[in-house]
Amino acid sequence: MKINKKTILLTNDDGIDAEGIYSLYKAFKEDGRFEIKVIAPDKENSAVGHAITVFRPISVREDYQKGKYFGYAVDGTPADCVKLAIGAILEDLPDLLISGINRGGNLGENIIYSGTVSAATEGTVCGVSSIAVSVDDVINPDYEYASEFVVKIAARILENGGLPKDTLLNINVPSIDKKEIKGTRITVQGDIGFRDNFVKRQDPRGRDYYWMDGEFMERNISKDSDYMAVKSGYVSVTPIHYDMTDYKSLDYFKAWDIEKLK
Amino acid sequence: MKINKKTILLTNDDGIDAEGIYSLYKAFKEDGRFEIKVIAPDKENSAVGHAITVFRPISVREDYQKGKYFGYAVDGTPADCVKLAIGAILEDLPDLLISGINRGGNLGENIIYSGTVSAATEGTVCGVSSIAVSVDDVINPDYEYASEFVVKIAARILENGGLPKDTLLNINVPSIDKKEIKGTRITVQGDIGFRDNFVKRQDPRGRDYYWMDGEFMERNISKDSDYMAVKSGYVSVTPIHYDMTDYKSLDYFKAWDIEKLK
Repeated sequence: MKINKKTILLTNDDGIDAEGIYSLYKAFKEDGRFEIKVIAPDKENSAVGHAITVFRPISVREDYQKGKYFGYAVDGTPADCVKLAIGAILEDLPDLLISGINRGGNLGENIIYSGTVSAATEGTVCGVSSIAVSVDDVINPDYEYASEFVVKIAARILENGGLPKDTLLNINVPSIDKKEIKGTRITVQGDIGFRDNFVKRQDPRGRDYYWMDGEFMERNISKDSDYMAVKSGYVSVTPIHYDMTDYKSLDYFKAWDIEKLK
Repeated sequence: MKINKKTILLTNDDGIDAEGIYSLYKAFKEDGRFEIKVIAPDKENSAVGHAITVFRPISVREDYQKGKYFGYAVDGTPADCVKLAIGAILEDLPDLLISGINRGGNLGENIIYSGTVSAATEGTVCGVSSIAVSVDDVINPDYEYASEFVVKIAARILENGGLPKDTLLNINVPSIDKKEIKGTRITVQGDIGFRDNFVKRQDPRGRDYYWMDGEFMERNISKDSDYMAVKSGYVSVTPIHYDMTDYKSLDYFKAWDIEKLK
């Protein structure tokens, strides 16, 4: 008798050949309870935010990564991959979309730049329960614990019948030894701040150009934030949504008599 | 006696030579109360979302648009323009950032793809009062009324000492005759839905590629939404923020015992 396995769609922004997505793939394969589909960018797409490709066609290559696993490599952004997966490649909606594991944390307001989070947001917009997963280390990330954790939380989400409509989870895992992980915290998006630095140079023809760089400022970091959880050795799970309305200021602006402007 | 004028930074995603930003420039110039700076992408950047450029340098050209006005043309995204303006080009923080006027509405969840909104979000992250402005017509937009409206609301914002920290305004103007505009509404981000369509083709070498297209679905559109306001002839002003935390679901997920996962 054939048992219908739940389908999990894996994508990311580091590209289909990144270590993080392969680590996830291995963990789900080993677990054996899920059908796994991989549809991811054919190259690194970090910091693309929620870009989509509208002015050129998107090519898709059926890709077998170095003999390791099968997936579709898309010459587009993470959001493109999700749109294509759901709108053109997969026959049915997946039961869960997982974006990651990203090399580097997606914490605080920095999630607005994140291709990893945008793929999960796109999944949510398309009606699929979606999570974004990152390991908070760009230099030497350890994906092992994060991958095990994701398999557990994926099972928990599916047991509960999926995520609430319009809500996704942004998960950040400290890059420390498994034994040192203190636990898991439900957190809020922190307000961590970032200062941009620009190095100005001139090209050989005398035209100005800039290299962008920057550093964290550690603004008002509340105890229940994603940032504090991860830096204290906890896995951070932040429920987020894409309704950006600032409800608390609706009345404030009404008092400005903006509605009388004409 | 020299009077210090308030400084307004104009940017957009349609590019420095777009009609929308020039219409804004003319309206502020005519008004005469403000110092105007223009720092915008050197080409169209629609649907780039909140992308930033981190893997290559960004060149900046001091640009005089067909003898019309002076501005800096940046070979980057709208968010890049704002980061560069604030971090490298302008000596002082501007008093107000205006992104637009976009050719086409930025309504409902579609703001997550919007370069126009992302520039205003970036301004807000950098501590500058910021607004995004769009005219809801891609074919034959009329920027005249929208530009007049923006000058009025800019003055109103500055009279009130700027926008609240972390809040920006997403403004959408119907593209109808000035006399037919019914007024202004403070709105919430609608839930309008979008269905992606993909046209699949093969290139001359037999490889698959896709063109993305799509259409609005008109989901649960509440009366107080941006979408309904604009489609009913009102200017829509939506206060938005970049805290994506879904506060209402924090307790829901705690009840899943996610914090016990390890």
